[in-house]
Amino acid sequence: MTWTLGEIAERLGGELIGDGARPIARVRTLDEAGPGDLSFLTHPRYLEAALRSGAGALLVARRLEGASCDQVVVASPSAALAQVLELLHPEPEATAGVHETAVVGAGCRVDPSAGVGPYAVLGRRVSVGAGASIGAHVAVGDDCVIGAGAVLHPHVVLYRRTVVGERTVVHAGAVLGADGFGYATEDAGHRKIPQVGDVEVGAEVEIGALSAVDRALLGTTRVGDGSKIDNLVQVGHNVQIGRGAILCGQSGVAGSARLGEGVVLAGQAGVSGHLEIGAGARVAAKSAVYQSVAAGTTVAGIPAQPIAAWRRQQALLRRLAEIWRRLLRLEGPGARGEGES
Amino acid sequence: MTWTLGEIAERLGGELIGDGARPIARVRTLDEAGPGDLSFLTHPRYLEAALRSGAGALLVARRLEGASCDQVVVASPSAALAQVLELLHPEPEATAGVHETAVVGAGCRVDPSAGVGPYAVLGRRVSVGAGASIGAHVAVGDDCVIGAGAVLHPHVVLYRRTVVGERTVVHAGAVLGADGFGYATEDAGHRKIPQVGDVEVGAEVEIGALSAVDRALLGTTRVGDGSKIDNLVQVGHNVQIGRGAILCGQSGVAGSARLGEGVVLAGQAGVSGHLEIGAGARVAAKSAVYQSVAAGTTVAGIPAQPIAAWRRQQALLRRLAEIWRRLLRLEGPGARGEGES
Amino acid sequence: MTWTLGEIAERLGGELIGDGARPIARVRTLDEAGPGDLSFLTHPRYLEAALRSGAGALLVARRLEGASCDQVVVASPSAALAQVLELLHPEPEATAGVHETAVVGAGCRVDPSAGVGPYAVLGRRVSVGAGASIGAHVAVGDDCVIGAGAVLHPHVVLYRRTVVGERTVVHAGAVLGADGFGYATEDAGHRKIPQVGDVEVGAEVEIGALSAVDRALLGTTRVGDGSKIDNLVQVGHNVQIGRGAILCGQSGVAGSARLGEGVVLAGQAGVSGHLEIGAGARVAAKSAVYQSVAAGTTVAGIPAQPIAAWRRQQALLRRLAEIWRRLLRLEGPGARGEGES
Repeated sequence: MTWTLGEIAERLGGELIGDGARPIARVRTLDEAGPGDLSFLTHPRYLEAALRSGAGALLVARRLEGASCDQVVVASPSAALAQVLELLHPEPEATAGVHETAVVGAGCRVDPSAGVGPYAVLGRRVSVGAGASIGAHVAVGDDCVIGAGAVLHPHVVLYRRTVVGERTVVHAGAVLGADGFGYATEDAGHRKIPQVGDVEVGAEVEIGALSAVDRALLGTTRVGDGSKIDNLVQVGHNVQIGRGAILCGQSGVAGSARLGEGVVLAGQAGVSGHLEIGAGARVAAKSAVYQSVAAGTTVAGIPAQPIAAWRRQQALLRRLAEIWRRLLRLEGPGARGEGES
Repeated sequence: MTWTLGEIAERLGGELIGDGARPIARVRTLDEAGPGDLSFLTHPRYLEAALRSGAGALLVARRLEGASCDQVVVASPSAALAQVLELLHPEPEATAGVHETAVVGAGCRVDPSAGVGPYAVLGRRVSVGAGASIGAHVAVGDDCVIGAGAVLHPHVVLYRRTVVGERTVVHAGAVLGADGFGYATEDAGHRKIPQVGDVEVGAEVEIGALSAVDRALLGTTRVGDGSKIDNLVQVGHNVQIGRGAILCGQSGVAGSARLGEGVVLAGQAGVSGHLEIGAGARVAAKSAVYQSVAAGTTVAGIPAQPIAAWRRQQALLRRLAEIWRRLLRLEGPGARGEGES
Repeated sequence: MTWTLGEIAERLGGELIGDGARPIARVRTLDEAGPGDLSFLTHPRYLEAALRSGAGALLVARRLEGASCDQVVVASPSAALAQVLELLHPEPEATAGVHETAVVGAGCRVDPSAGVGPYAVLGRRVSVGAGASIGAHVAVGDDCVIGAGAVLHPHVVLYRRTVVGERTVVHAGAVLGADGFGYATEDAGHRKIPQVGDVEVGAEVEIGALSAVDRALLGTTRVGDGSKIDNLVQVGHNVQIGRGAILCGQSGVAGSARLGEGVVLAGQAGVSGHLEIGAGARVAAKSAVYQSVAAGTTVAGIPAQPIAAWRRQQALLRRLAEIWRRLLRLEGPGARGEGES
């Protein structure tokens, strides 16, 4: 489907600079875009690439001087990009209806507008809301609830009593509701503490491929509305994640930790058990949080500390050799070194 | 099923403080428990929550002064909790019999008391012991052996010749027996070294969701009896893990490392290849072990060092700015800084 | 099948020391090998074990003095090991043909010599090349291309339009083509940026169990020919990986990073988004790369720095307590400590 640049600018509420009649067929990267394509500049890092791009038009945050192509100036090029991709590259529609090979247990309620793919297995008393899409090979345990418009990609596994909110997307291979990791260590070994709680994922959440959210020991492990979880992320039992949190790839949260609204964990970050990470706090990539973090704070390092302190420490670490030499110079030639006597 | 508090106390061998006739229907968290519920205090961190809990009774390690509810004093509240959860929240029984959609290869021996779920695929000559439970979509390669009472949750994959011990539990999506990561690098590229060994997991092991245990190059990768492995853990080829080890979430062990009995790897810890981690050694969260660790030692850091040394180092790192200022003061106003001339 | 040691030496182009008529049935580890077995010494670490091994013959890089067994001296024992394992321990042949339970969508082209396992699900217009092997429960989206001789182990998931090159092996549970992690954060929350690009994996790549390679936002996420990716590795959207790269277990590469030919990421290493890692660069285990790395450089640490600088820093860190004591001694007894006044 083709739109004109003028129509697109109007949809985006952006300022058009150039030829409103230009037909735009699709969005492409700066390097690959041609005259019939729209591209975008979302980060100054790519300014050079934008200036030499062959794109017919660019989404920009402010008018780009020196660019030969048309431009649409918008408040947020990222948000505008999301909008225009939905327009020009719509997702294929999922098919409604239950595939003939799907196994649906007793007492399930599957909305007629929902789709259930080949070889999906639903346990007993599972509820699937309107327009929800259950992919191939998905395994859903007894008494799960899948909200309207939710998407479970192929190979997702939900253990019994897991709740997935409306319009939430769970990517392939993710496992929701496996047992939390809890043992009582006795002389005879590690005795399993039965994990009899459950998992509740809110609405408009996205959970990445091969991520795991464990069921609670008792009560409920919760992922708040609008939170986004990347691939290969671990969320331990009884963790409480607030609304709009972001957990990047391979990050992990140990049992019973509480993450407030809008918390961000960058890639490979880790949070120890039972901690409180206040609303809006951010944890830098690869950091390890051993203590609770106040709301709004950014922390970094192992163990994690406020990022300003971490930066000062890093700057001094780079001067460690200099510190050593200056110390030796101060001691003078007559000084006796430790371990050198 | 409802028990009285007195019956529970007797089962646990605990000391009853309060009303033995009190009916207890279930176990709940301190925050959620009401008068018909039992709760527990397993960590002093939750003392306040215990004192204000509405629970009818508490499992405690010692008599709690100032608590208004009944109490059962036991040696280990964690172990007692495990026991009482088994009593009050028994796991649903798995169904015996092979589901009509399961594919069972030639020469398999499946005990009549075992259950094989929908769309499970067993290769040739697979043995499944009494009472074992094979979940939906599980894929088992040729010549695997699954012990009595073992549980393979949905979507577990066993490559050929993998052995899973009695009463061992493998959670959804875990992969046992994939090829180890071994190549001979030649001018033409990386040549795969065929991984022709296998994997043997002992009895009463638990392996978390989406964890991987690679098959050996030659010989056998081993996980000892009673070891517990959390989610998203990587165990490389030819690794030998002793009895009762604990590998927390997202930890990893590179090829041919040997972990002694009772070794503990905390979350996101890593162990390099070919090392020896002695019995009872513990590795702190996010640490990287580059050298062998003596039995009984606790190590931390990147690279990991004995934890006392790591703590001293961390304390001095926090004083690095002070060291720098004191050094400058000693040098006096006339000193010439490096790089400042 | 049994070969003589002489035949094996000839195949390997190695120098035979000992009895060429010795029958060799298989390859075993140094500890387990007996008189009818071949073993190998690939690392000096195992010299002692080689000398006391009961193996009938050893593959070695140079003649081993003091060994009582026969020897085959080769340029690279690792490469020779790969060759002899292929000879003595050939992989079981995959079965050609589409299993009766597989679901094959409209417009698929499956070569008659390819195998498609039980319960595999192919979407529409999927192409499967000659001799390719699709395991049980594999889910392949619309318009995917699977090259000749490629192997998808059980439970692999390919989202739509993913391309897998010839002779590439993907291990169980790996997910190729899930959505990249991209959102525009607005007042109302995180708005998903549709990920409309795809994934292209080259020829002779190996991808480990439970690894994820995300589809591009636009354009293509690429894994170059001959690259080897271990288990539980995360490759973000729009990442470009050159030929012959090695990504060890649990490493991760954030979006739009570019890894040149032959780059090596050791275990649990991480690379931030949009960086350039030059050809042949190496990243040590558990390191976090926050800045681009020049070709041929080896880096280590968090943040990663050239490894020589990291080693000096580590050496000085171990002397931090000494630095502190020497500083105090220089200040003398009259000095006033900060925070001590």
